[in-house]
Amino acid sequence: MAVLQVVGFDADDTLWHSETWYQDAQAQFESLLARYIDVGDAQVRERLLATERANLRLFGYGAKGMTLSMIEAAIALTDARIGGSDIHRITEIGKGVLQHPVELLPGIRHAVEAVAARHRVVLITKGDLFHQERKVAESGLADLFHRIEIVSEKDERTYARLLEEFAVPASRFAMVGNSFKSDIAPVLKLGGWGVHMPYHVLFGLEHTEIDASHPRLATVEAPAQIPAAIERFATG
Amino acid sequence: MAVLQVVGFDADDTLWHSETWYQDAQAQFESLLARYIDVGDAQVRERLLATERANLRLFGYGAKGMTLSMIEAAIALTDARIGGSDIHRITEIGKGVLQHPVELLPGIRHAVEAVAARHRVVLITKGDLFHQERKVAESGLADLFHRIEIVSEKDERTYARLLEEFAVPASRFAMVGNSFKSDIAPVLKLGGWGVHMPYHVLFGLEHTEIDASHPRLATVEAPAQIPAAIERFATG
Repeated sequence: MAVLQVVGFDADDTLWHSETWYQDAQAQFESLLARYIDVGDAQVRERLLATERANLRLFGYGAKGMTLSMIEAAIALTDARIGGSDIHRITEIGKGVLQHPVELLPGIRHAVEAVAARHRVVLITKGDLFHQERKVAESGLADLFHRIEIVSEKDERTYARLLEEFAVPASRFAMVGNSFKSDIAPVLKLGGWGVHMPYHVLFGLEHTEIDASHPRLATVEAPAQIPAAIERFATG
Repeated sequence: MAVLQVVGFDADDTLWHSETWYQDAQAQFESLLARYIDVGDAQVRERLLATERANLRLFGYGAKGMTLSMIEAAIALTDARIGGSDIHRITEIGKGVLQHPVELLPGIRHAVEAVAARHRVVLITKGDLFHQERKVAESGLADLFHRIEIVSEKDERTYARLLEEFAVPASRFAMVGNSFKSDIAPVLKLGGWGVHMPYHVLFGLEHTEIDASHPRLATVEAPAQIPAAIERFATG
């Protein structure tokens, strides 16, 4: 007797690789700045993250905001010595992230299909509407999902609104994702279930404390383990 | 006997002033570049629009993409002579657009309320998810709408998808907006109705031919005329 009605999947770093592309962009940014300043990559990274955090309330998440924050941080770190050609290179780094190919995590298609055979599955992702839509289309997974929701923030308020739209109580909803902060914690707080599948790198603004012993949480290492984790919830 | 079930409203330049802020940003951009080059504002504007058009398939609509296109155009137009401080000023121009106050068009609240008293009203806007959400929240109009849809493009495909989600046939749907290209033409093509309310300025990428004699089109000059135009359709 299944308790769960709806299972949500995060997209970036859950269905396909994403943060690796952002980290690659960051590495390019750091080597570009190394030609101007002698402060070390860690300090550049820290300054960029602080700039992104400060701009979050204006830009939201996504590669366009990251690119603007990179430009801002580069000008500040070099005391405006950075030249126009190198700022152009930063815009090209940002465009590279927006154009990266969509590469699925191994086994994720089978995992989503297996869950979809028993539950209604929805995709819930945050970030840039335009970029996320392109990735969903390119992934070839869109048809597996009953709904695709692109939101600006994944907090309790957003999940509460979505659950109301799906007409499902939190106790019958599980979310699968790599970010404990965005995919798991708010759903657990609302009374739902979480399958946490950490990715090998995590965006700085997603760092949070993890409550690994929560009674409605499962932690898995790879997509192949997702369906069984869901069924363990479902059969209570 | 009302035929119309759902009436959609565009947001930017239909509910509140928007393009004026973008044009103000553009004027600031032009005076900044005038210190580097001697080509005239019209040529700067043309180059910026061409850059925005070329970047549209990567950036989509919105102020963050505009800012990145401004930076790209400024570097190209000055042969990379533009300095870091002035590029910083361009990012500040972009942030100004993202932070502009939401000022309603005179009479629009009454117009939406009057239409909402007889039909289901929805808000359909395109552009940056994060920025649009902020404006909707700040407008104080959100509660009037049954649904708020932020989309990446307003073409026939998008409207067809939305009408399916609203469970309404095109023949019982009318759209109110300032852009003939985005708000009116695709809805007329699908078999729906349009109330065109031109705004005194129009974004370059929205320019299109206008078929003013279409049998399912009304053209109004101000929000106060919207409810009567809708009722003429409804009792048609």
